Amino acid sequence: MTNPDRYFAANEGTQGAGHGTFVDWDALDPIEMVPGLNFQPVLGDGLMVNFVRFAPNTEAPVHWHDEEQITFVLDGEFEFEVGGETRTLRRGESVVIPPNVPHGARTHESSCLEVDVFHPPRLGLLEAMGRVKPE
Amino acid sequence: MTNPDRYFAANEGTQGAGHGTFVDWDALDPIEMVPGLNFQPVLGDGLMVNFVRFAPNTEAPVHWHDEEQITFVLDGEFEFEVGGETRTLRRGESVVIPPNVPHGARTHESSCLEVDVFHPPRLGLLEAMGRVKPE
Repeated sequence: MTNPDRYFAANEGTQGAGHGTFVDWDALDPIEMVPGLNFQPVLGDGLMVNFVRFAPNTEAPVHWHDEEQITFVLDGEFEFEVGGETRTLRRGESVVIPPNVPHGARTHESSCLEVDVFHPPRLGLLEAMGRVKPE
Repeated sequence: MTNPDRYFAANEGTQGAGHGTFVDWDALDPIEMVPGLNFQPVLGDGLMVNFVRFAPNTEAPVHWHDEEQITFVLDGEFEFEVGGETRTLRRGESVVIPPNVPHGARTHESSCLEVDVFHPPRLGLLEAMGRVKPE
């Protein structure tokens, strides 16, 4: 079979009877983690997609966590540090962050709209959402 | 501790010695799955983020798969069907798709730039990327 036949073959598992969940992330109440840093997370089961807005001159301090993360920029720019390397990321640029590799980010003059994808869902954010109780 | 203290506590695991991988997804060679449908996948370990461009009047047929998926629109719009429900999705709108729930999409007059996030990485796309051999 060709790639599209295989990609759309719909024969890799048994068809499920569930449904999709539509979410307008612009309508989610933002969680202001620190002043100028707002999170709007969309939650699956093994996946979390967090839409993140940085105001200018806002910092997410260097930290690390067990969850794998992929981050990419939609609008504006920020300075991103990971594993000791720092780059300025703009729309079309992404970074893959293995578990427990230290990373952080900050804006300067520009704001930034970016997306953090996590597997599994980031525990610290589930706590901030009130989905799990802090240990 | 407050939420930001916990979120940025950097104490949930042992700090890792790895590094991040920067990817400019605009520079990835597009995989044209069917005419008018182009994929630019960024691959992690348990995560895949696929940047998808639909030309106008392009269809991704209904299919299902074992991988969990979250999809959201960045530009333009498309008609998205999941579990028998159909909606037009635009920027700011997302859909969470559990494993093996049938879904498909099509554009009409508009093009669409959207993101498909998978856990684990979608096998059919790893095959199209040449990362795994078809079974």
